[in-house]
Amino acid sequence: MAPKYKVTYFDIMALAEPIRYLLSYGGIEFEDVRVKGDDWPKLKNGTPFGKMPVLEVDGKKAHQSIAIARYLGKQVGLAGADDWQNLKIDATVDTVVDLRIAVVNAVFADEATKAQKKETLEKDTLPFYLGRLDNQIKENGGYLVDKKLTWADLHLAATVDSVNGALKTNIAANYSNVGSLTEKVWNLPKIKEWRAKRPSASM
Amino acid sequence: MAPKYKVTYFDIMALAEPIRYLLSYGGIEFEDVRVKGDDWPKLKNGTPFGKMPVLEVDGKKAHQSIAIARYLGKQVGLAGADDWQNLKIDATVDTVVDLRIAVVNAVFADEATKAQKKETLEKDTLPFYLGRLDNQIKENGGYLVDKKLTWADLHLAATVDSVNGALKTNIAANYSNVGSLTEKVWNLPKIKEWRAKRPSASM
Repeated sequence: MAPKYKVTYFDIMALAEPIRYLLSYGGIEFEDVRVKGDDWPKLKNGTPFGKMPVLEVDGKKAHQSIAIARYLGKQVGLAGADDWQNLKIDATVDTVVDLRIAVVNAVFADEATKAQKKETLEKDTLPFYLGRLDNQIKENGGYLVDKKLTWADLHLAATVDSVNGALKTNIAANYSNVGSLTEKVWNLPKIKEWRAKRPSASM
Repeated sequence: MAPKYKVTYFDIMALAEPIRYLLSYGGIEFEDVRVKGDDWPKLKNGTPFGKMPVLEVDGKKAHQSIAIARYLGKQVGLAGADDWQNLKIDATVDTVVDLRIAVVNAVFADEATKAQKKETLEKDTLPFYLGRLDNQIKENGGYLVDKKLTWADLHLAATVDSVNGALKTNIAANYSNVGSLTEKVWNLPKIKEWRAKRPSASM
């Protein structure tokens, strides 16, 4: 019998969407549990380290979104072909995580510093990361690593999906290679199907 | 001919020390480049994403400290035996990274918020993480994952090494399993040798 997968997270994209993309890409059915904010405090202690998302596979719990995504990337055939290629995938994913954290830190800053943080984000941080990622995609034949689709590409597209919601803009608008790769992932049949049927979420 | 390894970082432990531990553990000679703060701005643009540490292997550059540590963990025989074990290793490492980031955010907070952040760190955040890690080590026979030494253990010991320096305390003092595992790693002959010969660093 196929293992039973369950993803538990808030009703947003954010940290869980790369996981949902990867499961969808692999045609793996999963229970998509979305916890309401009010219910979270009483569930928190039942998670491995007080955080979501949590992936359960036949009841075995795993935590940490990127660790889960790497595991699923391997299961669905989107890992690297060798250790050095996996290093490049992992470094790229952690760089996109850095970008996402910068966005979150600006969007959820306290009122006293928010304006300044959003300005730094828009003028410096996003152009820095997106410019370099754009160049990396250009040098790698339209993908992030070694001219082929890997879980880093799905992670980027899911992150852009969420960040665009959080910032109410298209962060890839001025970065044609980032934009093309994101669209390419969104047009994969299984991802297209997932994005059409998933619950709508703000970020 | 053996590949040539070079690690470039500031003259501190912090993000590079897990990498230095892993290379030392594997008996891999490496050039240990320590950049002075004044020299960093002119080197920054030559790094993949404007950050250190950078690992070079025969001149090929890799970035992102955890991605590098995972790669080296594999090379020196400290990776997991299967995908699920690697998931547990990766989730644990990212949890220790979360702990480290909480420390850094308190230590380098601006003066207005530093006292509050250090209090939250000492009363809530460190006990939360260290208590759960202590329990995880107890349940796993003295190691973080599945009763055997993995690169997660070296990463934890190197992080404790650095965090103790930053906080000028022994964060493992009240967590006997964290303390025993850290000592066990520090007493591995190659790690002991590395810690005796390395340049002294504040954190």
